[in-house]
Amino acid sequence: MVDDPDLIYLDGNSLGRLPAATVARLERAVVREWGADLIASWEDRWWLLAEEVGDQLAGIVGADSGSVIVADSTSVVLFKLVIAALQARPIRRTIVTDDLNFPTDNYALQGAADLLGGGRQVVRIPSEDGIHGPIGAIEAALGEDTALLSLSHVTFKSGYLYDMEHLTRAAHEVGALVLWDVSHSVGVVPLQLLADQVDLAVGCTYKYLNGGPGAPAFLFVNPATAATLPNPIPGWWGHQRPFAFDPEYFPDFGARRFLSGTMPILSLSALPPGLEMVNAAGVDAIRRKSRALTEFFCELANTDLAPLGFTIASPGNADRRGSHISLRHPDAWRITRAMIETARIVPDFREPDNIRFGFAPLYTTFREVATAVARIRDLVDRGVHLEFGAARSRVT
Amino acid sequence: MVDDPDLIYLDGNSLGRLPAATVARLERAVVREWGADLIASWEDRWWLLAEEVGDQLAGIVGADSGSVIVADSTSVVLFKLVIAALQARPIRRTIVTDDLNFPTDNYALQGAADLLGGGRQVVRIPSEDGIHGPIGAIEAALGEDTALLSLSHVTFKSGYLYDMEHLTRAAHEVGALVLWDVSHSVGVVPLQLLADQVDLAVGCTYKYLNGGPGAPAFLFVNPATAATLPNPIPGWWGHQRPFAFDPEYFPDFGARRFLSGTMPILSLSALPPGLEMVNAAGVDAIRRKSRALTEFFCELANTDLAPLGFTIASPGNADRRGSHISLRHPDAWRITRAMIETARIVPDFREPDNIRFGFAPLYTTFREVATAVARIRDLVDRGVHLEFGAARSRVT
Repeated sequence: MVDDPDLIYLDGNSLGRLPAATVARLERAVVREWGADLIASWEDRWWLLAEEVGDQLAGIVGADSGSVIVADSTSVVLFKLVIAALQARPIRRTIVTDDLNFPTDNYALQGAADLLGGGRQVVRIPSEDGIHGPIGAIEAALGEDTALLSLSHVTFKSGYLYDMEHLTRAAHEVGALVLWDVSHSVGVVPLQLLADQVDLAVGCTYKYLNGGPGAPAFLFVNPATAATLPNPIPGWWGHQRPFAFDPEYFPDFGARRFLSGTMPILSLSALPPGLEMVNAAGVDAIRRKSRALTEFFCELANTDLAPLGFTIASPGNADRRGSHISLRHPDAWRITRAMIETARIVPDFREPDNIRFGFAPLYTTFREVATAVARIRDLVDRGVHLEFGAARSRVT
Repeated sequence: MVDDPDLIYLDGNSLGRLPAATVARLERAVVREWGADLIASWEDRWWLLAEEVGDQLAGIVGADSGSVIVADSTSVVLFKLVIAALQARPIRRTIVTDDLNFPTDNYALQGAADLLGGGRQVVRIPSEDGIHGPIGAIEAALGEDTALLSLSHVTFKSGYLYDMEHLTRAAHEVGALVLWDVSHSVGVVPLQLLADQVDLAVGCTYKYLNGGPGAPAFLFVNPATAATLPNPIPGWWGHQRPFAFDPEYFPDFGARRFLSGTMPILSLSALPPGLEMVNAAGVDAIRRKSRALTEFFCELANTDLAPLGFTIASPGNADRRGSHISLRHPDAWRITRAMIETARIVPDFREPDNIRFGFAPLYTTFREVATAVARIRDLVDRGVHLEFGAARSRVT
């Protein structure tokens, strides 16, 4: 990792840090593969890269080789799989989700329902406390009209961790398909997509997988159903013989059929070092440290920050949370600015009053957690945040 | 450019070369923006990058600021715009295209027609000679049932250059929308998307724009119609207030509404140097050199290569062709391999018997054209290609 001893970076759940090996890897991709080898790199390297990276990911999410591919952005792969799922359950009209889901996921669900029409609708089950997933209400909502259950495995704001196996089974009991967005769990919570009989999953690679800003997304399609699902955006990368330039489209087998156009190779080339680190450490070990980090932070938040008006807006039970913790505070925005600009701590702010702290076990230390809490207590205690305006910029 | 005096690279129409400035630009994106500045780069740099690059492109394609955005892959942006166009012409059922179009474009057209159903169909007008666009037959096919005319401005194999203004007007006369794929013309043929009243266009940035392997695509939406077109893949990057994480989707104005998920920032960061070069040289000047290069090549091909069994499979009239020329030969595959492996010339092969030569005026010289033809004549004359097998690999 690029080192800055002063900085306490607690936003690895938004943008993971730069692995040292990635610098050389990318330079090679640019200077040698593109600059010198030019189109020969398609055959020698790039064409296979998406599959290689998919296989590295398969190990991390508990899937078989060939069932995970890297492609597009999370929104686009989500859209593709939602359309495919709705088409695989043509007489069912309902998609069930919750209001803790990442908003853009819900835009895509709604967009897909609107596009296919026929009375299709998204039912968004509300969380009672804005923190915990409404499991009971979700189970009650599942029925013979449910085509798809789609949820974030770990929710983006509160960090609630759903029981994937349990809800997948519940969806299957009514004949629905299930699609998990594992963006906030992949690489930090053990996943068993195949053992849990998950039908579909998507995720992003730039959080705990350290793949770089806006790195390509990935998708998982269970081999049991892959062959029956059409890609709504057919493209040459998903063709059985891409370089035949066949006038007719013949979809490839397995997850590959969900590829569309040419992949952004430079961004893709940045992925392997981060994936190698996660595979080397092992997700079980990463999860153990993650639990210990969030436990430690919650303990300190309760003793040192609660008296200053902070409340924890994440599950108290470590079994039911991912690797980030949200604190609420009426002055959350100004405190976030003060942390970044005066205390060398980087969390992120989420509307309206959440400060989100991400703990990336590969590089976040217990000492950093303790120091961060001490610095936050100090700055709020001294009213440093009151010097910051309440006006918000476009990007926070 | 990275320099190799021996190499004659005639495949800039497939993958443009590496601009020297891109190496440092990408290193900065990786080491400083990602490695050191981390999420602060979203506000300082990345969030605006897609728009900045879109504005650079707007200058190249004859469009206004805000009407061009960079996003996804060409297949995905094409799909989005086709769906939007079909929805804007709901009672018309036909998409008109030709059989010279890039196959993956036709897969996306067919995929969109199938997805929306309702009897929608793609009518693929055949070229009479496989070289020239069937203009008369296209005009005859346009009618009151035509929702969309979609063509490659310069066709991928023969390099035929359509008269954009003429066919756009013809489509408008019957009330249809028009969508041009300018992948093979952008940066090498002057474009006036706004003056020609084009509704929609897509293109890729890794050919004559030298944006790098699989660099993100771009799309143009005419400001006159943008506000009426919905994005079928709604996502937070196209939201009016992306960081509000609003549970409801409110599309941004102009072309921005066609953004979906997070952009691959590293790939995106590689784009500006190539665009700067094109803007500095000016597309009119680039086109002049391009015409002279293709004229010179055709002349030499007629005198020196035709006696060896080569025929030109591109338009003879320079007004009607882009910047690449296809030669046909019964042994095209083996000759291509021999050129690459023994003669340091890189063209590309396209099934079944085409060798495609791309002339990128920013770096292809007249001397290279002459040398390439001399080397090809020599190797075919000596039968060097006969030493290469006829078996084809997956990627060619």
